Amino acid sequence: MPEILFKVDLNKPFIEQDLVGHNRWHPDIPAVASVNPGSVFRIECKDWTDGQIENNDSPDDVRDVDLSMVHVLSGPIWVNGAEPGDILVVDLLDVGTLPDYEWGFTGIFARENGGGFLTEHFPTAQKAIWDIQGIYTRSRHIPDVRFAGIPHPGLIGCAPSTELLAQWNKREADLVATNPNRIPPLANLPNPKNAILGSLKGAEYDRVAQEAARTVPPREHGGNCDIKNLSKGSRIYFPVYVEGAKLSMGDIHFSQGDGEITFCGAIEMAGYLDLHVDLIKGGVAKYGLTNPIFKPGPVEPRYSEYLVFEGISVDEFSGEQYYLDAHVAYRRACLNAIEYFKKFGYTGEQIYLLLGSAPVEGRISGIVDIPNACCTIAIPTAIFERNVLPS
Amino acid sequence: MPEILFKVDLNKPFIEQDLVGHNRWHPDIPAVASVNPGSVFRIECKDWTDGQIENNDSPDDVRDVDLSMVHVLSGPIWVNGAEPGDILVVDLLDVGTLPDYEWGFTGIFARENGGGFLTEHFPTAQKAIWDIQGIYTRSRHIPDVRFAGIPHPGLIGCAPSTELLAQWNKREADLVATNPNRIPPLANLPNPKNAILGSLKGAEYDRVAQEAARTVPPREHGGNCDIKNLSKGSRIYFPVYVEGAKLSMGDIHFSQGDGEITFCGAIEMAGYLDLHVDLIKGGVAKYGLTNPIFKPGPVEPRYSEYLVFEGISVDEFSGEQYYLDAHVAYRRACLNAIEYFKKFGYTGEQIYLLLGSAPVEGRISGIVDIPNACCTIAIPTAIFERNVLPS
Amino acid sequence: MPEILFKVDLNKPFIEQDLVGHNRWHPDIPAVASVNPGSVFRIECKDWTDGQIENNDSPDDVRDVDLSMVHVLSGPIWVNGAEPGDILVVDLLDVGTLPDYEWGFTGIFARENGGGFLTEHFPTAQKAIWDIQGIYTRSRHIPDVRFAGIPHPGLIGCAPSTELLAQWNKREADLVATNPNRIPPLANLPNPKNAILGSLKGAEYDRVAQEAARTVPPREHGGNCDIKNLSKGSRIYFPVYVEGAKLSMGDIHFSQGDGEITFCGAIEMAGYLDLHVDLIKGGVAKYGLTNPIFKPGPVEPRYSEYLVFEGISVDEFSGEQYYLDAHVAYRRACLNAIEYFKKFGYTGEQIYLLLGSAPVEGRISGIVDIPNACCTIAIPTAIFERNVLPS
Amino acid sequence: MPEILFKVDLNKPFIEQDLVGHNRWHPDIPAVASVNPGSVFRIECKDWTDGQIENNDSPDDVRDVDLSMVHVLSGPIWVNGAEPGDILVVDLLDVGTLPDYEWGFTGIFARENGGGFLTEHFPTAQKAIWDIQGIYTRSRHIPDVRFAGIPHPGLIGCAPSTELLAQWNKREADLVATNPNRIPPLANLPNPKNAILGSLKGAEYDRVAQEAARTVPPREHGGNCDIKNLSKGSRIYFPVYVEGAKLSMGDIHFSQGDGEITFCGAIEMAGYLDLHVDLIKGGVAKYGLTNPIFKPGPVEPRYSEYLVFEGISVDEFSGEQYYLDAHVAYRRACLNAIEYFKKFGYTGEQIYLLLGSAPVEGRISGIVDIPNACCTIAIPTAIFERNVLPS
Repeated sequence: MPEILFKVDLNKPFIEQDLVGHNRWHPDIPAVASVNPGSVFRIECKDWTDGQIENNDSPDDVRDVDLSMVHVLSGPIWVNGAEPGDILVVDLLDVGTLPDYEWGFTGIFARENGGGFLTEHFPTAQKAIWDIQGIYTRSRHIPDVRFAGIPHPGLIGCAPSTELLAQWNKREADLVATNPNRIPPLANLPNPKNAILGSLKGAEYDRVAQEAARTVPPREHGGNCDIKNLSKGSRIYFPVYVEGAKLSMGDIHFSQGDGEITFCGAIEMAGYLDLHVDLIKGGVAKYGLTNPIFKPGPVEPRYSEYLVFEGISVDEFSGEQYYLDAHVAYRRACLNAIEYFKKFGYTGEQIYLLLGSAPVEGRISGIVDIPNACCTIAIPTAIFERNVLPS
Repeated sequence: MPEILFKVDLNKPFIEQDLVGHNRWHPDIPAVASVNPGSVFRIECKDWTDGQIENNDSPDDVRDVDLSMVHVLSGPIWVNGAEPGDILVVDLLDVGTLPDYEWGFTGIFARENGGGFLTEHFPTAQKAIWDIQGIYTRSRHIPDVRFAGIPHPGLIGCAPSTELLAQWNKREADLVATNPNRIPPLANLPNPKNAILGSLKGAEYDRVAQEAARTVPPREHGGNCDIKNLSKGSRIYFPVYVEGAKLSMGDIHFSQGDGEITFCGAIEMAGYLDLHVDLIKGGVAKYGLTNPIFKPGPVEPRYSEYLVFEGISVDEFSGEQYYLDAHVAYRRACLNAIEYFKKFGYTGEQIYLLLGSAPVEGRISGIVDIPNACCTIAIPTAIFERNVLPS
Repeated sequence: MPEILFKVDLNKPFIEQDLVGHNRWHPDIPAVASVNPGSVFRIECKDWTDGQIENNDSPDDVRDVDLSMVHVLSGPIWVNGAEPGDILVVDLLDVGTLPDYEWGFTGIFARENGGGFLTEHFPTAQKAIWDIQGIYTRSRHIPDVRFAGIPHPGLIGCAPSTELLAQWNKREADLVATNPNRIPPLANLPNPKNAILGSLKGAEYDRVAQEAARTVPPREHGGNCDIKNLSKGSRIYFPVYVEGAKLSMGDIHFSQGDGEITFCGAIEMAGYLDLHVDLIKGGVAKYGLTNPIFKPGPVEPRYSEYLVFEGISVDEFSGEQYYLDAHVAYRRACLNAIEYFKKFGYTGEQIYLLLGSAPVEGRISGIVDIPNACCTIAIPTAIFERNVLPS
Repeated sequence: MPEILFKVDLNKPFIEQDLVGHNRWHPDIPAVASVNPGSVFRIECKDWTDGQIENNDSPDDVRDVDLSMVHVLSGPIWVNGAEPGDILVVDLLDVGTLPDYEWGFTGIFARENGGGFLTEHFPTAQKAIWDIQGIYTRSRHIPDVRFAGIPHPGLIGCAPSTELLAQWNKREADLVATNPNRIPPLANLPNPKNAILGSLKGAEYDRVAQEAARTVPPREHGGNCDIKNLSKGSRIYFPVYVEGAKLSMGDIHFSQGDGEITFCGAIEMAGYLDLHVDLIKGGVAKYGLTNPIFKPGPVEPRYSEYLVFEGISVDEFSGEQYYLDAHVAYRRACLNAIEYFKKFGYTGEQIYLLLGSAPVEGRISGIVDIPNACCTIAIPTAIFERNVLPS
């Protein structure tokens, strides 16, 4: 087992851990540990909500979740020799559960508190608990379903530079300003409430808490990309923006569907990541990187039979035609899938939860055939223990 | 070889073929042939432009293409016993080239005539010709690239009912009305110019030409979905809207990337489709179908190594933050890929053409992490004969 | 379509074709055509028996097959510039059926005339006819089975040198001499009866007919390897033994299981091969080649669910223990599979025919754990339209 | 983490563990624990040699290994309700390393002490140590190689009945009697020396030690099958021969090539297995089982590019022709691969060690084309960090 650089005690709040991580992005959050290029080490992570969701049958904790506390991240890790403009090469050697916590959760957030991709259709909080048994999972809340996990960190990336952070804050504030009272909001702007900023204290804490970006969206540095294929064996190339790179991570998922449509949508869990890091000096300019790039690993669960649902960019309520809108098209594809599986005895909520958590493929199939985008969602039939093909 | 129900002569215009197909959607276009459920038959198709693009090195034909003529479709095929509300089950038994026409083309449409996904970046017409050699293709216009095809009909579907057609026309007209002078237009409304409507003549032709929908967008019936995975061996479940189903098809692609981003983006070719058809009586209600669903076949080219590029929904020119806009996020992912491969000696146009035509995977990875959608484009490294990994 | 270098008329015997191929191996059989390195061309082939087996329900033709006539090969093709010690690089660009002959056959040879892997269990001639529909096949003789083909030439290779031929003849004669009256024989020695030797005539024909090796076994040059994975898109590296390489091929299979256990075991058919050839000068010494090596192509049918049967090297009749005998172990694995599927309503003969023709994987799993070899046969469950899992 | 039913302390000999397992097969070895059908539990295992091989650079420990001590097995586990004739369904939920022992070894046994598949070519003891880093491994003894593991128990199965054991002992004794002084021996007969039999003591120990079968060969119950595909997520169906089933297991491999050709050939390690067990009452007769059958899991490492070597059944020293001998053919295929990779700077021993431990596919490609069997070994090129293709 590699050396554990960041250890968590699942029985304690994030703020009371021996090493305190962070739940905001800012270049001035101090590193908690340093490593050399070529090192292998383990990072443990709490689930993204800091333990707010429990292994029971009530969705009340999902309904009442305090989202000002997310995402609790382990790090930053300082990589010796890393400088702005370098590429930090991260090999995800392994992703796993922590002993005695072999379960995860998927939630539908209430429309008033977080919402989700289909919040107009499913506005009420709901929850599924998943039992993890080795490579497999099943949920007592969604019968006759079992599948292998594709474990990955939902969130991983290097700290932004001061300039990049300013750019994030400006563009997100501009967006919110277009409709400041919207529920759910258009973006989550910096919010000192419940900000955790590692070892920062006093005035420095106050300053950084005012400036630090929320962790919800993916951005240029990667961050909360929620890409299910960043699984075991992946190699990721991250742009470095600050000295030491300051790599942080969390939001581990046992599995997820493309889009993570329920928002709290993957199978969220605590867990560990085993990493190997290296540097490509000056790599950002050499390879023209704006965002991270990556090579998926060789042990993703593979399926040979899929059932695929199409969706087009026409609103399901009004019938309004949208222009090449992949968001609407993917929503329609998801809704089409939900409608189909309801014919096999599932509730809409169960399939919504399933599409967020099982390894479904969400594709932009056609994005130029004006005015309709065509998106597809491909569902491996082997995740069902029932026959779900038309006959 | 199965019986050829629809034969084409590639040396004659579409309108002069023995059987004349159509290039618009309308329930009243007469069927050209009928089959029983359980039948196996072959349909030949011209390329979608009716031969406007030639196997040479000049993009002038792409620049000057007359889009009022597209897509030339083979059909409609009447399926005996098919009634509205049935599912038409179509097995794509094979897709192939026609003798002596073993090549295809990928075009970038000029901004003024069609445009494409990245038209702001690549406003000028461009063309790549692909030589097809068995399962493989390569282009003299994009060096050191070779890959196996994933042949499929870009366009296939049953005729709409009168009601469905009216719905299409209304919603698309409403969209165009929001910005009627836009170039390219927001949608292509019914246009009698160059309409081909099978054997219709006289007043009936005139009426239908006024009403018939253009074939560009995918819609509820499927149509121009441009889904690369509708390849050999797929089984598709189509909703039936009119008696006899009236199945039509065309726009055969030797290969395509998800999104078909150059618009004329796949490797466009003439070719044939071998089909088996069957019916599920009353299947639309039984399975809750709004759009077609399908099962991909078992012989898609498979790759184990991909390089994946991420994109987020921030405008590349203005830096403006969009709200969960998968269209923008996928555009950024594509642009990131283009920038990367330019470092390996390709021009931007070459990679744009390649992303439209090679079997790249375009995914909606995250669609809930406000305000950024995260899309990814995964490119199999084996399509390059150069080493294209970072080092 | 590439130029056809070797055309066959399926209505004429092999000996009456415009170009006459051969059914023996000898360096002095004259080439029928020549090509340059870099060329792409098509070779048509009759089925390996020269049309002795018909598309009907009687196995009498299999029982009475004249094996002195096999395998009818198309070639030799002279590759300009090829010299002994070079590697001939052959790309199998495509493999397909000929128009109007879209069917194939699998036979169990009678013990007295050919036999097969399980001839002690199934001594009587039997036959299955397969209908080919695009990428798929099914047989009216084996219900509820459908699968995608993995088309390949069972037999392909360059002509042996005089020295290599002499070596083959000697070692095979030595083997036969150990039990000259065995039925079936231990090997098929040179036999002038029905020898076809291209354009050779008179005394030269007589001499070569006496010396030429039979085509049944695979040997150092490749030849009748019956490797199902030499399918579309493969690249093969052949040792060259004579000037011009003299490449020949035939015995096309629409599909086959590892081991081709029924001997006439694949789905045997007439068809065509599209090839690209090139040379690596001096490659045999450079890469230490004794036999051909190859890279399989990317479009083999892929399955994610297999049912796997184990076998060990203990004789099924006597209970005798063999020493690390993979032949016996694989036989037991096949017999175990047959016994299993008989519980699902199939006859033993049906499954024997199926294991010879469907894309089953035959593996040497353990070959060192004295005294038992362990072989496995892995059967994709998706080839059955029945549920064949234990429950 | 599931309950650990069998715990090992890697710092203590097998015989001094809290629970003592066994290294022989006999129905009368007492169970160490019992479980109900439906249970999930963890079993820890020492490496098969009980720690005789160390993480250093000297092959002396491999040369001097005491094979009378192998294989040290964890169990037997009593499954409540299991009776002879039932099928024991075992799900391999997970396979992993133990903390602080993340390494494994591959050995070439000396000809005088164990030998191996190529012992005539490589008669001297040799060793490679593998470092395990998450899903990957690399060895300081074989440069420029890295691959993902396919972890599995080399040995797992239920206790034989008294009758089955007698049958094993008789047939193996008969074989040894044909050449009793052979080195290595034709089989390992019962040998009380170093026999470990769980809690048995006194006269009962003495009786069982005289009768108990060695664990080396795979047999009807499964046992030491060394099937690399019995990896994470597999479901195995075992015949039950005695009341309680008495399931035992060990010989965990981090990875292995088909055939495990170096004998000590996989990447041998200590580790754990997470299992779920269930019963199919009367399943042996219902499904006609003679040996175990299994369904591989969905997370095996997958590769799309292989280099494949062929071998035929002709002796490499004498040139003697063997009759359909898959053992000889596979040996030739392996030797061909070794010869090839020596051209890339490796020693023969390095490649021999690699073929035993990397996930290479060993296939019986043709087993009927008299007199030559054709076997192939397919090597994923991605395991090399060098380019190993011909050019």
